[in-house]
Parts: sequence; structure tokens; C-alpha cells
Amino acid sequence: MKSLKVIKIGGKVIDDDQKLDHFLNDFASVKGPKILIHGGGSIATKMGERLGIKPNMIEGRRITDAETLEVITMVYGGLVNKNIVAKLHSLGAKAVGLSGADLNIITAKKRNPKPIDFGWVGDVESVNTEWISKFLDSGVVPVLAPLTHDLKGNMLNTNADTIASAVATALNVEFETELMFCFEKPGVMNNGKLITKMNLLLYRYLKDGGVITNGMIPKLDLGFSALKKGVKVSIRSFEDVAKPESGTSLVK
Amino acid sequence: MKSLKVIKIGGKVIDDDQKLDHFLNDFASVKGPKILIHGGGSIATKMGERLGIKPNMIEGRRITDAETLEVITMVYGGLVNKNIVAKLHSLGAKAVGLSGADLNIITAKKRNPKPIDFGWVGDVESVNTEWISKFLDSGVVPVLAPLTHDLKGNMLNTNADTIASAVATALNVEFETELMFCFEKPGVMNNGKLITKMNLLLYRYLKDGGVITNGMIPKLDLGFSALKKGVKVSIRSFEDVAKPESGTSLVK
Repeated sequence: MKSLKVIKIGGKVIDDDQKLDHFLNDFASVKGPKILIHGGGSIATKMGERLGIKPNMIEGRRITDAETLEVITMVYGGLVNKNIVAKLHSLGAKAVGLSGADLNIITAKKRNPKPIDFGWVGDVESVNTEWISKFLDSGVVPVLAPLTHDLKGNMLNTNADTIASAVATALNVEFETELMFCFEKPGVMNNGKLITKMNLLLYRYLKDGGVITNGMIPKLDLGFSALKKGVKVSIRSFEDVAKPESGTSLVK
Repeated sequence: MKSLKVIKIGGKVIDDDQKLDHFLNDFASVKGPKILIHGGGSIATKMGERLGIKPNMIEGRRITDAETLEVITMVYGGLVNKNIVAKLHSLGAKAVGLSGADLNIITAKKRNPKPIDFGWVGDVESVNTEWISKFLDSGVVPVLAPLTHDLKGNMLNTNADTIASAVATALNVEFETELMFCFEKPGVMNNGKLITKMNLLLYRYLKDGGVITNGMIPKLDLGFSALKKGVKVSIRSFEDVAKPESGTSLVK
């Protein structure tokens, strides 16, 4: 079976032009079919602030109100996505920037407003692999923004890790898929030391012990869920995207 | 030969949600292969103002400085493009939103800074029809934002009328192509009366007489240049997109 790398790049790398250039150089050198999924980092937040849009928070979580959705659609779907695509072409990689609405590749359902109304946030319903496969078979790199749509005419804000995991899992039927969450740290850390292998038991132990916290929890949940469906998963430094083994590998 | 409609929708329709919805409804009902090219209307200008970016003008023409390019990339490539794509899907049309950088469909050259440095403005160099044809053959509607790239990693601001004309001309080899410039007026007007047929001689006469002015001049220049290469061209109301004949038709 053909192999495929689904690579998610974290917000703090997107925020830093030098780091992003470094990453894109390495990413362009990765051989074989590959997909890039990006977030928008703090650019959307900063843009919202410049536009005078006050963050709407409930219980410490940001609500995607209509104005925030506009900013996210602009920044993720336009600014970040198109600049990455243009840079990849300059590095010799043919790329296509897509949101979930384009070619209807990812449909989502607006999240239930109860108990908390998160606004224009979408939970992935289906990944349509037909065009993604055509691009990959033609040597084109799909670059996905963390945006979906509801087929009712609305764009929706969807977490980039979730999209990466959903896309990797959906394509695992056709490809032998590897999912890499790339970010600014070497992997999952404990007291400054990299954990190179992680299984569910160790994950739960470290989570209960307060070693694994915050954003790493949903990332690992998504990673283990993809692993269960046969996807190879690692969490690694953005500097190690071209390495065969690196960072924290999830194992059964 | 297969027929193709290349439809450009003007900024004032994009600016008005009701008009845009009306247009998209009609556009979705147009049978056969079709391409939509949109501008960004005043949304980019308003967004720039809200972000405190002062318009940089030379001789009454706006300069695309680096900040303005960012706004244009966000607004045209993200906000406007993705919302149109999402709406088309809700109307049963399968669409893909693209800038010139995506799949490298339109490359451009940054305009010579002499005599006037317009900044990050691109003059079209080539239209690569391979993927556009694949989309059209599969019943997918390409929705093009007025953005190109230079293959050196930079996005460029390119006039939407120019893109429409270049795309219509490039695809005229493979399709029998019709180019429609749709906007908020019934066509080219003279004293409140619609001119239904226009040839080069009449155009020059009306231009010299000051009847045809401003933005209509480059549009007609582009239209006559496409006509010369065998494209059928009309300038018509956004309300007449689904009509076989309407507005001002260019004739030899």
C-alpha cells in the first residue's frame, strides 16, 4: 500500500516567520504523498484585537461568535493558507490550499449549544477523500486550514488537531498513514526529559499525575483514537518533520 | 466543443449580502461548466481602515503595500472566497475556492516599479488550465479570488477583470468560452439607455466622447482583447447571469 504523511503544524511555529520558513523547507523535502494541516496561531487573536473584537469567553474557553468566525475565515483560510501555498511552490512543491468547504472535503455539524454555546464551532461529520486522493496521486500537496462547513452555507471553526486526526484516519483505508503533530517542543516531556514511547496506560498515569496537562490532553486523545484505527502517530518537534523516527511515538 | 461560462462578479454585488445571495442563486442554476471570478469590493478597504492601515495613493491609484497585500489576501482569498464556496454548496453546486497560487493556476510578474511603484501588484504571466479543466470535467465550479503568485513565495494582487479575461482566453482552446462581466448596471449605458451591441469603432467613439469612462475602459479593453481571441463577451447585470443574451454584447 502507498504510504502517506499527515502533518499538523502548531500555532507557535506559524506565528514565527523564521520557524515557519525552516519548517516549510524541511516539509518540502519530505518524499512521497503528504498533507499539511495548519492552525492560525495567535495571528487570528491579534487580528481580532486590532479590529476591536473583544474575545468572548465562557469558562475560560473562547466562543466563536459571528465576528470571530469572520476573522478566523480570513486569517486561517486566506492569509496563513495562501502564504504557505505560495511558499511551498517557491520550494518546488505543488500545493493546493483548501478549507473543508472547498470540494466539500470536510463537513461538520455546528456544536450543540447546550450546555455551552461555543458559537460557530463545527464537529467533523465526514471527510470526503475523493479529491484529496486525486491531488495526492498527482503529486499535489493539500494544505488544509482548520475550517469546515455545514452544507447550509456556513463556515465553521474546527480545531486543527481534530482535522489532522480525522483526515489521517479517513485516508488510512487507501494509504498506510502516518500522523505527525509537529510543534515547538521535542515531544511529550516529563521533567525536561522526552518520553519516546507512550501507550494508553502510561498516558493515563501521567495525566492523573498532572504531568500531561492542557492542550496536550486532547492532542493525545486524538492521537490514541487514530492509533486505534491503525494510523502511526507521533508528537514531535517541527524541526524533525523529515526524520523517520522522532519525538514521542504512540504505541499500543 | 464543450461550452464554458466564465463569469466575473463585481465588487458592489459582493458588498451587498442580499444582492450576492440573489446572484449566487441564479449562478448556481446556470447549466454546464462555469467558473466564477470575484473581487472583494469595499470589504478589503473597510477592513484596512478598521486595522488602521492608511490607503497609500499615488496619482489617485492605490498602492498595494505589504500591509495592504495581507488584507487583500485575507479578505479576497479567505473571507469572500470561502463564504461564496460554502454558499454554493448549500445551493447544490460543488465548488472549489482558489487563488492563483493554488495548484499554481495563475502565475504573475510583480509590476515594474517604474514609472510608478504599485507595490505587490501582479501582471498575469500564465494560466495553467490542467486542474481547472479537471474540475470542470468533474462538474466542480472553480471560484477564483483576484490573487496570483510569483513562484518566488509571494502572493500578488491582480485585478479580477484581468483574471477573468485571461482565464476565459486560456480555456478557449478547449472550450467554446463565454465571458460575462456581471455588475450592478444593465450593461454599458449612454444617457440612461442600454447599448446592446458594441464594436471597437463604437467603443472608441464613445470613449473619445467621454460617454465611456473610468473602470469601464479597462473592462472593455479586456473584453475586446478576449473577443479578438474568439471568446464571446458581454457586460450585463448580475440579475441576468442565467439569461442567454443580455446587456451589452461585444461584436467584431
